[in-house]
Amino acid sequence: MPGEFDFIRWIMSQWRGRAGERVIVPPGDDLAVLKWSGDDLLIVGVDQVLDGVHFDSAVHSPRDIGRKVMNRNLSDCAAMACLPAAAVATAALPKGASLDYAKELYLGMSDAGNAFDCPVVGGDTASWDGKLVLTLTILGRSAGIQPVTRAGAKAGDAIFVTGPLGGSILGRHMTFTPRVALAREIATIGISAMIDLSDGLSRDLRHICEQSGVGAIIEASRIPIHADVSRLATTSTTPLEHALHDGEDYELCFTSALDHSTRGTPIGTITAGDKLLVKHADNRLEELKPGGFEHSL
Amino acid sequence: MPGEFDFIRWIMSQWRGRAGERVIVPPGDDLAVLKWSGDDLLIVGVDQVLDGVHFDSAVHSPRDIGRKVMNRNLSDCAAMACLPAAAVATAALPKGASLDYAKELYLGMSDAGNAFDCPVVGGDTASWDGKLVLTLTILGRSAGIQPVTRAGAKAGDAIFVTGPLGGSILGRHMTFTPRVALAREIATIGISAMIDLSDGLSRDLRHICEQSGVGAIIEASRIPIHADVSRLATTSTTPLEHALHDGEDYELCFTSALDHSTRGTPIGTITAGDKLLVKHADNRLEELKPGGFEHSL
Repeated sequence: MPGEFDFIRWIMSQWRGRAGERVIVPPGDDLAVLKWSGDDLLIVGVDQVLDGVHFDSAVHSPRDIGRKVMNRNLSDCAAMACLPAAAVATAALPKGASLDYAKELYLGMSDAGNAFDCPVVGGDTASWDGKLVLTLTILGRSAGIQPVTRAGAKAGDAIFVTGPLGGSILGRHMTFTPRVALAREIATIGISAMIDLSDGLSRDLRHICEQSGVGAIIEASRIPIHADVSRLATTSTTPLEHALHDGEDYELCFTSALDHSTRGTPIGTITAGDKLLVKHADNRLEELKPGGFEHSL
Repeated sequence: MPGEFDFIRWIMSQWRGRAGERVIVPPGDDLAVLKWSGDDLLIVGVDQVLDGVHFDSAVHSPRDIGRKVMNRNLSDCAAMACLPAAAVATAALPKGASLDYAKELYLGMSDAGNAFDCPVVGGDTASWDGKLVLTLTILGRSAGIQPVTRAGAKAGDAIFVTGPLGGSILGRHMTFTPRVALAREIATIGISAMIDLSDGLSRDLRHICEQSGVGAIIEASRIPIHADVSRLATTSTTPLEHALHDGEDYELCFTSALDHSTRGTPIGTITAGDKLLVKHADNRLEELKPGGFEHSL
């Protein structure tokens, strides 16, 4: 069944050879990078949250929903190691939503943005007979640090993650803190590729490998598993599988030839070729299949 | 009943006094204007189209829907007299939409954008059990022309519109051409305020007046009425009312102390005070009430 990533691959194919002076990083990374006038590169991307997919309006407060759409975008900024600068947003509001509800959505976005000096500078609101949709577009600045893409990982680089993974569905997917400052710090020291973990490590590491033209071996025993996983009463899924596939961790996964073990947990090594493997405690190698979240079309 | 414009006014009140060095034009205009590094100002805004509100997916092709969301944003660029530079977009796709349908949406956006050298450089796709939502964020450059806001109209300025109004529901709301080149031309010559006519002249001229702190008198006999209006079989609404209130004309309304009558139709005069009036052929003055489209929350 064709899905979201087939669509993205098709869009990337439309762009092949077209990136140039103005568009430095075209569609296919966390954010696009544009040359603007002056020294600062303009980094731009957009993300949406849909009722019933990314949040549940019957459960989550409008303030938290607003925060989430901003924080997802700030996490994309982190993935490129850029500095958030401003945002614009849309709300498609169910008919009957009150003015107070709309204000809470806005305050959620602006609260989360203001924490990173990233004001909401514009937007569009409409009401309809559908469910709530929020989108937010973020503008970032390179501000002295070359944007980090998914495409620079090299065989021999170590692979790091910035925090424990899995079980975010219990609440962390609404309340995470985007790793903007840490991303700027590690990019200044030196890294080769980076992504934020929104679709699950097994999918997101694959994005790095595909765009860098490399493979990877990760060690099962080194994957940091979040305490939330133990609270998920699942019999069919192991804790490791939750950490590999759950998604919405919003930690960073990055690669580097340098030792970043004080800033992240080393979980494996980039390899030549194109295979993604998990090495278990008994040295058994297993293919790392993408088990994370993909929107099917 | 509180509506979209109450919400926008509240957001504007949140910003009062906060615009500064980085945010030159805050929320409340067609687009926001940001200071970036270098000489070029960064102009940014976002617009959305919702199934059943701005288009009907049972009637309109995905190519035309994609075109519309890009062209609405290009029309906002025209309203600020800026040069479109790049766009990012989201699609919330109904479950079961095919990959081909998604491609057609993208091609509609990119076709319309490429006509103005405005590529789609990034985006986000998700599927859900709701109806189709497209959003598009546009980035423009000042490129040597100071952005034109809604706030500069002065008593004595003439009011112009760039084309005939009314009846766009018959099809023009999907097929219009944004007035980007004309906007740049008239802004170079000299204008004081501008807006694109999306909500209807009676609402959009009010936006100029409110933000400029002025009033207006327009002459009924001078309002150019589109031929489409005569095809609307309405008994309760006059052709003039259609031209004043229908909306989605995507022509420009601008004010100037100069004579722009070769580039637009003069329809009236900006006045001191805050009254918006229509002068009828028999010299009768009538208050111009906002009859255009407002989303109720």
